[in-house]
Amino acid sequence: MGDQMPPMFPIISDEEASERVGAVFADIRETRNTDFINNLWRVLANDPAALETTWEEIKRVMAPGELSPMIKDLIYIAVSATNNCTYCVRSHTASAKAKGATDEMLLELQAVTALANKTNRIAIGMQVPVDDAFI
Amino acid sequence: MGDQMPPMFPIISDEEASERVGAVFADIRETRNTDFINNLWRVLANDPAALETTWEEIKRVMAPGELSPMIKDLIYIAVSATNNCTYCVRSHTASAKAKGATDEMLLELQAVTALANKTNRIAIGMQVPVDDAFI
Amino acid sequence: MGDQMPPMFPIISDEEASERVGAVFADIRETRNTDFINNLWRVLANDPAALETTWEEIKRVMAPGELSPMIKDLIYIAVSATNNCTYCVRSHTASAKAKGATDEMLLELQAVTALANKTNRIAIGMQVPVDDAFI
Amino acid sequence: MGDQMPPMFPIISDEEASERVGAVFADIRETRNTDFINNLWRVLANDPAALETTWEEIKRVMAPGELSPMIKDLIYIAVSATNNCTYCVRSHTASAKAKGATDEMLLELQAVTALANKTNRIAIGMQVPVDDAFI
Amino acid sequence: MGDQMPPMFPIISDEEASERVGAVFADIRETRNTDFINNLWRVLANDPAALETTWEEIKRVMAPGELSPMIKDLIYIAVSATNNCTYCVRSHTASAKAKGATDEMLLELQAVTALANKTNRIAIGMQVPVDDAFI
Amino acid sequence: MGDQMPPMFPIISDEEASERVGAVFADIRETRNTDFINNLWRVLANDPAALETTWEEIKRVMAPGELSPMIKDLIYIAVSATNNCTYCVRSHTASAKAKGATDEMLLELQAVTALANKTNRIAIGMQVPVDDAFI
Repeated sequence: MGDQMPPMFPIISDEEASERVGAVFADIRETRNTDFINNLWRVLANDPAALETTWEEIKRVMAPGELSPMIKDLIYIAVSATNNCTYCVRSHTASAKAKGATDEMLLELQAVTALANKTNRIAIGMQVPVDDAFI
Repeated sequence: MGDQMPPMFPIISDEEASERVGAVFADIRETRNTDFINNLWRVLANDPAALETTWEEIKRVMAPGELSPMIKDLIYIAVSATNNCTYCVRSHTASAKAKGATDEMLLELQAVTALANKTNRIAIGMQVPVDDAFI
Repeated sequence: MGDQMPPMFPIISDEEASERVGAVFADIRETRNTDFINNLWRVLANDPAALETTWEEIKRVMAPGELSPMIKDLIYIAVSATNNCTYCVRSHTASAKAKGATDEMLLELQAVTALANKTNRIAIGMQVPVDDAFI
Repeated sequence: MGDQMPPMFPIISDEEASERVGAVFADIRETRNTDFINNLWRVLANDPAALETTWEEIKRVMAPGELSPMIKDLIYIAVSATNNCTYCVRSHTASAKAKGATDEMLLELQAVTALANKTNRIAIGMQVPVDDAFI
Repeated sequence: MGDQMPPMFPIISDEEASERVGAVFADIRETRNTDFINNLWRVLANDPAALETTWEEIKRVMAPGELSPMIKDLIYIAVSATNNCTYCVRSHTASAKAKGATDEMLLELQAVTALANKTNRIAIGMQVPVDDAFI
Repeated sequence: MGDQMPPMFPIISDEEASERVGAVFADIRETRNTDFINNLWRVLANDPAALETTWEEIKRVMAPGELSPMIKDLIYIAVSATNNCTYCVRSHTASAKAKGATDEMLLELQAVTALANKTNRIAIGMQVPVDDAFI
């Protein structure tokens, strides 16, 4: 798999990380209880302010709420498949599995995503007006 | 709300429904336990084969599985918001609420959808390569 | 239907048209054999160079070739439904009908568009590798 | 071309196919009059119900109607290019060619797809209101 | 213009604003030097944490940097037109004009956005490989 | 990087170029003051009329105006990232850099693009009505 094109900005290693970036990396490691930091963060680290706020947003938005973190990962995958983001489909599928998502759940997710993309275009293509009951 | 543009094909009333279309309408009513048939089906009824198979697909895909029907509606909303389908956002929000989705769940859904759309473009725009761990 | 929002730029009337814009309007009228000039051209007329080149491109690309103008309008509708462009869905449906597209053709078009949007996301969501036979 | 990433679900071989999946594979072979079964079906086979219904839908929707199967493949390509689905662009181009699509047709298709994507954003970006004549 | 559909969540008035929401509203007013708070913030206020972080992000990202706030608004419009977000096209056009964007700039922006959407699909539809010089 | 899939149409070399295509290639070289002609043009050369008009459009639209060519490239990148066009993201980033775009500008661009994609879906997902002030 070494033939992917390189990113548009350097992948920041631990050694290259500034103090500010290093602090975020440390928090990622502690929060996720793993030494692994995936490329999204290492590339985003070229913009330390974006790294900080995006990481804080991920932590807050993906935390347990009325929806579980696993369900939130499934929603993330549905959006990422719709937008054709290979990186995000793969990273959030790994994340969902780590939180207990079964293959069956992932297949149900794919089926809903595919169907929604289909009926979205039926509604748009045929210009279906919104029912009063839905307004 | 009478100022929406009309659809590209007629809205088929119960009276105008052929026997084939009428059978689907009857199944929608029985399955959902309501007399109400929303415009998507009434417009799609111009193509009876598409009406039948799409309705069967919705019934099968949105049925209880390892994911609940309510969670499936939330996923539907996430896709529909990403694709900007007003009809689908509104109809599946109504459906999710009818199945017990709370405002808090819907707000969490919006936050995940917005964040995924953001990080999708970070991954794409910066051309972040997929980590070996995700392949 | 008077409640649509106004465009971001003025709708240029015949009276307001500069000589350069007027020449394009005249060519639209002659080419289409109608006095009617739809809003897309009247708004685009705020940028006369864009008006000229876009009109020339439409004339060239939508002309009879190995694909008929009607088939080209159907393809236009498929793209426009996928992109959710109400204006383009409606204007090209009117155009396709004027060129002989039947309701049955338009329904088949809708079905293909909906299905393609569905299987696009199956291929992307499940990350299906391209078969050697297709490369 | 062996460096594509693997799919998110296994590619089901003939040997691994359940009886239910095998029946669909057999129908694909008979319908298409070829032994070749492309990856989309082999990956989708992880969800046998989705495999069955999607295959049935493809058979029905892509069958000869008022539009020919070749024209339907061209429409499929236009949608797939707009959604950036590499798999679908390549598989349906192969399919269209097998049905007689010439390079010239495919180039005309590309030109229409490109132009529609351009004017879609002119209509949306300038917020052009739909003409009464199109409503 | 009173015929737009209502939002999916209430528009929070100043009177309904909690202390937390009120603090953000006050900062919006002070930062923008106007009493006007647009609907995006009043609807997002249903999720106070999202309101706070999104407002902070807007303030930080849209601030003067190596790109001016006006140029950033133009980029915002290009994305919003591509995604077909009417709200965002209109609000950021108003914002760009307030910062000095001329009609000519906005027309140039529209032309670039339209052209990029066109050539994006040429590159994707024809599956053009990235030149070594760009990697 | 030799493992990208080939394009759907041949890459036209200088030797294979017709007189008509050669004239465009010559103008590209003269205009850009380089011998290098990137793949987009060499693939598009399969459709000489499309090559001519697209090149003329690029020359006109990307020329200095009230917006500088560099700023126009940044807008191009924002659209291309939103549409997930790898080719266009990479080629216009190279072009922007050649015109003086700094890494800091490109990072600001990424941040605006990501944020716009996020708030686009907040506005759409929550169905925020356009304020009268923006109409």
